Amino acid sequence: ASQQKSVATLLGDCDAFLFDCDGTLYHAGEVIPHVAEAIGHLRSLGKAVFFVTNTSSRSREQLQAKLQALGVPCEAEECVPSGVFTASYLRQAHPSAVRLYVVGGGGLVDELQKEGFICTGGPAEDDEKFTEEGFKSLADAVGEEMFDGVVVGWDTALTYRKVAKSALVFQRHPEAFFYATNDDAADRVGGWMLPGNGPLLGAIEAACAACAPERRDREPPFGAKAVVLGKPNPAYARKIAEWHRVDLRRAVMVGDRLDTDIAMGQQAGMRSLLVLT
Amino acid sequence: ASQQKSVATLLGDCDAFLFDCDGTLYHAGEVIPHVAEAIGHLRSLGKAVFFVTNTSSRSREQLQAKLQALGVPCEAEECVPSGVFTASYLRQAHPSAVRLYVVGGGGLVDELQKEGFICTGGPAEDDEKFTEEGFKSLADAVGEEMFDGVVVGWDTALTYRKVAKSALVFQRHPEAFFYATNDDAADRVGGWMLPGNGPLLGAIEAACAACAPERRDREPPFGAKAVVLGKPNPAYARKIAEWHRVDLRRAVMVGDRLDTDIAMGQQAGMRSLLVLT
Repeated sequence: ASQQKSVATLLGDCDAFLFDCDGTLYHAGEVIPHVAEAIGHLRSLGKAVFFVTNTSSRSREQLQAKLQALGVPCEAEECVPSGVFTASYLRQAHPSAVRLYVVGGGGLVDELQKEGFICTGGPAEDDEKFTEEGFKSLADAVGEEMFDGVVVGWDTALTYRKVAKSALVFQRHPEAFFYATNDDAADRVGGWMLPGNGPLLGAIEAACAACAPERRDREPPFGAKAVVLGKPNPAYARKIAEWHRVDLRRAVMVGDRLDTDIAMGQQAGMRSLLVLT
Repeated sequence: ASQQKSVATLLGDCDAFLFDCDGTLYHAGEVIPHVAEAIGHLRSLGKAVFFVTNTSSRSREQLQAKLQALGVPCEAEECVPSGVFTASYLRQAHPSAVRLYVVGGGGLVDELQKEGFICTGGPAEDDEKFTEEGFKSLADAVGEEMFDGVVVGWDTALTYRKVAKSALVFQRHPEAFFYATNDDAADRVGGWMLPGNGPLLGAIEAACAACAPERRDREPPFGAKAVVLGKPNPAYARKIAEWHRVDLRRAVMVGDRLDTDIAMGQQAGMRSLLVLT
């Protein structure tokens, strides 16, 4: 009874629900039971719902397609993977930036291109191999192009070549900015843990510090450590609130992780709901 | 004159010279001037010479071939890349270990096989791609085999899949040991810096800590950080001294790096010669 009352209070006090996706709505490719009904119920009460995931390899439309395939009807506007926030943030913070080197999936490249950035890297380089003999010509090629920055998202096609090319961008373009969509350490998939973007980003940060040592003492985003834009960064929730005129004091962050979901909810002044899936 | 006198003293007091290779004997694929003559002069005086490099991607014979191609005649016995020391150390420290997962080049796999280890990983997996759908079957496959440990050397064909598979070995075989041939941060190649094994190892260590968190509090080599066997580890120089009956008090470490070459020389009780190439 007391649980029902607190649910009723939450529903009465709140207008918007931000849902984490991996581990909260689905798990190892399967939708978690009653998710579709719960979201349908919120919609029937007139609540706004948003889908907020640090996984940046899917674009807005790709996340929408994934949710719909799992039986969760949704609009593209409601889907805000961290790549969407990253692209919007970069456009605002660096209005004249043109060209980026991207380590990440196709969805991240798509979102950055929608904001007018010219991107190299991403899936176009998934099959390129590194050779020591080719390193000098790679360095020349990186020096001939302009690069305004490097953006790193989870990349299951990460290669040594991408790490080396990131290090070359920082060497040859010392003013290049450095951002990451997130730094999640790992995700649970089918009972086992899969390394997340954090370990990969760490390799690129260490390569930057070693190969462009003058950056070590610089302030982010021009130093050797990336600025991390996804959860738990409260600016991510604030951007969604701004776009959709949501009052975050009347919004709930629903997620399965204390360090990203609940931390962002608290820092953004939202209520939080931890699901133990 | 004083320089000539100190060289004469050094030659009189010392019987053996350990040479770093990259940056000391050659640089970006080209031999440094007078290297062949200097080594020939040492040999004519009856001094022992050894070639000691943290680059573990070449076997003993591959390093010999590289030096000979650059005009430096040498025996295979004199060539001791860090993979040779790593293989010998592992055989001694873990006499009953059988199967290893190796991130690294073919030369490292060769040296480990010479010590009787059965190796998976290495170049055989350079072209294998990671898919999220395949993660569960990869986890099953890793669980079905026995793995005694993971060994990480510089791998210019590193992929996300290798990082993920390392993390699975640590999850599924909690008692697996964890070693690295070296943790050099970067190497200078043709005027630009190339990320070394350190940044790559850092990604695998972070993945281990995130995916097999129970290892975080364990002592090496059973924790989340690898035991690093190459320079500056003085055991590397001591092993060469043991094999060739060298008195390290009468030996000189010649190298271009303070943090690896000279540090090992000092810790092993050798004299050191820093070359500024």
